[in-house]
Amino acid sequence: MQTAVSTVAPSAALSERDAARTVAEVRLTPILIADPPLLNTHGVHQPYTPRLIVEVVTEDGTTGVGETYGDTRYLELAAPLAKALPGHLISDLNGLAALADRVCAPPEQTSDSVSAGGLRGVQTADKLRLSVVSGFEVALLDALGKTLGLPVHALLGGRVRDRVDYSAYLFYRLAEHPQGQGEPDTWGAALDPEGVVAQARRFADTYGFGSFKLKGGVFPPEEEVAAVRALAEAFPGRPLRLDPNGAWSVETSVKVARDLADVLEYLEDPAGGTDGMAEVAAATGVPLATNMCVTTFAEIPEAFTRGAVQVVLSDHHYWGGLRNTQHLAAVCRTFGVGLSMHSNTHLGISLAAMTHVAATVPNLDYACDTHYPWQTEDVITRRHTFHDGALPVSDLPGLGVELDRDALAVLHQRWLDDDGTMRDRDDAAAMRKADPRWRTPSVPRW
Amino acid sequence: MQTAVSTVAPSAALSERDAARTVAEVRLTPILIADPPLLNTHGVHQPYTPRLIVEVVTEDGTTGVGETYGDTRYLELAAPLAKALPGHLISDLNGLAALADRVCAPPEQTSDSVSAGGLRGVQTADKLRLSVVSGFEVALLDALGKTLGLPVHALLGGRVRDRVDYSAYLFYRLAEHPQGQGEPDTWGAALDPEGVVAQARRFADTYGFGSFKLKGGVFPPEEEVAAVRALAEAFPGRPLRLDPNGAWSVETSVKVARDLADVLEYLEDPAGGTDGMAEVAAATGVPLATNMCVTTFAEIPEAFTRGAVQVVLSDHHYWGGLRNTQHLAAVCRTFGVGLSMHSNTHLGISLAAMTHVAATVPNLDYACDTHYPWQTEDVITRRHTFHDGALPVSDLPGLGVELDRDALAVLHQRWLDDDGTMRDRDDAAAMRKADPRWRTPSVPRW
Repeated sequence: MQTAVSTVAPSAALSERDAARTVAEVRLTPILIADPPLLNTHGVHQPYTPRLIVEVVTEDGTTGVGETYGDTRYLELAAPLAKALPGHLISDLNGLAALADRVCAPPEQTSDSVSAGGLRGVQTADKLRLSVVSGFEVALLDALGKTLGLPVHALLGGRVRDRVDYSAYLFYRLAEHPQGQGEPDTWGAALDPEGVVAQARRFADTYGFGSFKLKGGVFPPEEEVAAVRALAEAFPGRPLRLDPNGAWSVETSVKVARDLADVLEYLEDPAGGTDGMAEVAAATGVPLATNMCVTTFAEIPEAFTRGAVQVVLSDHHYWGGLRNTQHLAAVCRTFGVGLSMHSNTHLGISLAAMTHVAATVPNLDYACDTHYPWQTEDVITRRHTFHDGALPVSDLPGLGVELDRDALAVLHQRWLDDDGTMRDRDDAAAMRKADPRWRTPSVPRW
Repeated sequence: MQTAVSTVAPSAALSERDAARTVAEVRLTPILIADPPLLNTHGVHQPYTPRLIVEVVTEDGTTGVGETYGDTRYLELAAPLAKALPGHLISDLNGLAALADRVCAPPEQTSDSVSAGGLRGVQTADKLRLSVVSGFEVALLDALGKTLGLPVHALLGGRVRDRVDYSAYLFYRLAEHPQGQGEPDTWGAALDPEGVVAQARRFADTYGFGSFKLKGGVFPPEEEVAAVRALAEAFPGRPLRLDPNGAWSVETSVKVARDLADVLEYLEDPAGGTDGMAEVAAATGVPLATNMCVTTFAEIPEAFTRGAVQVVLSDHHYWGGLRNTQHLAAVCRTFGVGLSMHSNTHLGISLAAMTHVAATVPNLDYACDTHYPWQTEDVITRRHTFHDGALPVSDLPGLGVELDRDALAVLHQRWLDDDGTMRDRDDAAAMRKADPRWRTPSVPRW
């Protein structure tokens, strides 16, 4: 058995240059960002959602930035990691993971399971820690890239494409947040096939997206099938996806898969869990995608050997960073399972990180999801712009984005000013502002 | 479907510094290196064995070195890759693999299978190309590390240990090569338990190795069992391994596994193929290791899902480089399969590369194999020295080795002077020098 050392300190052989590649300081800035009233099976997005911006500053003053979830339970794990990181080499990404293993254990946690995670799958202490690590890993890679004069993709082996395709992420939505909260926008409501098609058309016209995903699990399946049919008619031949977040029974899932077999690129998490997905997969030829039943490496063997999923929606936040995303891609490639990318509400730092890693993965088989067009606020000075549904891959050093400190301060002030109701995303609570009797539906809902 | 570009040229955004990170020249130097008369089930090692030294020179004059197999069929694939590489960014490792896919197709090859590969498993055009790519990838990483002032392990995410354990690689052997060819040494013959134990003792005394592997498949199984028993008595409690290179039937394999269950760390490739290994694995609790039935990613799903192997012996030459070795490690980690490292006859460049990647893999569960102590010649200025059975992980830029051009010239001259008999390793032909009737035994041999 090889001996693994838990901390590898810079050895005496390291030069001054290496010392300048050492972390001097980590800044954590929780923020609240505007989010539109998008509907899902749990409820509705809050008017503001929490994110955490991670800044890693090296001894020579280079700053790398990362972004991850900002709910309280993530902040609680990020704080000890930020405290422990000074002195760490910015190139030591494996050491970051080991460090997090040591210092990020939730203090009063005896069981591994901390909560039902809703849309993010079952949440465990391991998964929370990996999401925190992802923000730090991206910040280290950004700093390393800036220091070395290399884009992040080059630190990951180099890009195999010069643009990354994204998919339009369609949502049923309200015209405005309940009780008039939040920031207004011009999208209007989308609660039926007509509204969904109008939304899709605006996405296609504005950003050139060539494929469309509808977040489902909101209305009875037949209504959502009708919406997908309407999309197929409005955009003939375009790849379409439907994602009810595990809200359906196996029977309903199979029926929808059969009804939409001719137009679906894949069906995402129709039923809950590996058992349910395996049953659906056995009964239909429509590929099943997931970001719920396969969200960790530990969940892969059963799901892959049972053929429960045909496409894994990777997410560098879930999986612990960009290098783990590449490892996931290697596992998928090995087992002939497709790969695409999942997205939760995020800003331009995470979109840049997604784009860099996506550019390095040869077997990225589908256009990636992104919530980005729904986000009107950002913490970078130049927002990303989709052309023909794609983003160019930056060759600038690091991520190729610059932190907008004024914007960051405004969004952090919003977090400071919040009375606590927005600091932990709770779509069911947000829905209760419109319907006080609303409870997170039990599954299968249909 | 994401579009993959086959060549990503440096974009206009690249700076002068990036231009200096571009390959200007590639030098290929085939050499013949002395190899002792080690026995295996195919025959005996030749007096000299071919290796290929790859040098990548950047526009600013930095040289990176790599090493791989040097048989003619590897040289034939290396030549077009060397010709195509100038202009390539040294950081573009994914692009290297794509480039090799394009230019390394064997010209007159219509079938994927090019030959029975003997000890290296079934050889296909894909596998030959990956072995060639590995030498180039290591050379690019060495150049990149030197350019950036980072050790290769830091380019791979950083080391998780500061030393890598190796295992003593014991061989039945002749005192000297047939017909007095080759370089003499002081080891003497080892053809029975007593000889094997004496060899092990010298290895332990000189290098401090704590575990022992015996290359088997040479004598009838009961003799090899007796040798392992003798090792167990001479070195109580030390991990032991036996590797007959697939020479046994399932029945013999199971019998040996049971006979040695109390002393074997693992049994390596007792029977040939996934079918045979799966049968043996089902009948014994001794872990089975392989570098023959799982040598490519394509071979993994069946072997892992059938439980045919419990330990994969990775080899960055086989698998296409250091990053692919990390990907293999990720797949093994995901599926709970152990990981160790295989070795063929190699020099100090490859040992440095092995040590760097081994240092970055958290789930390196066993001490690595290496032929290195058997090699008396090298192409680096300072040979590696094992202490307590381990090598320290270098923090110097790149691999941390320096090419010895005088030694390289001598070994290359030997290759030039060779009449062709040594340029392709053929252990059976070498054996015929001692026994003209010798033929590669059909398997299972016992």
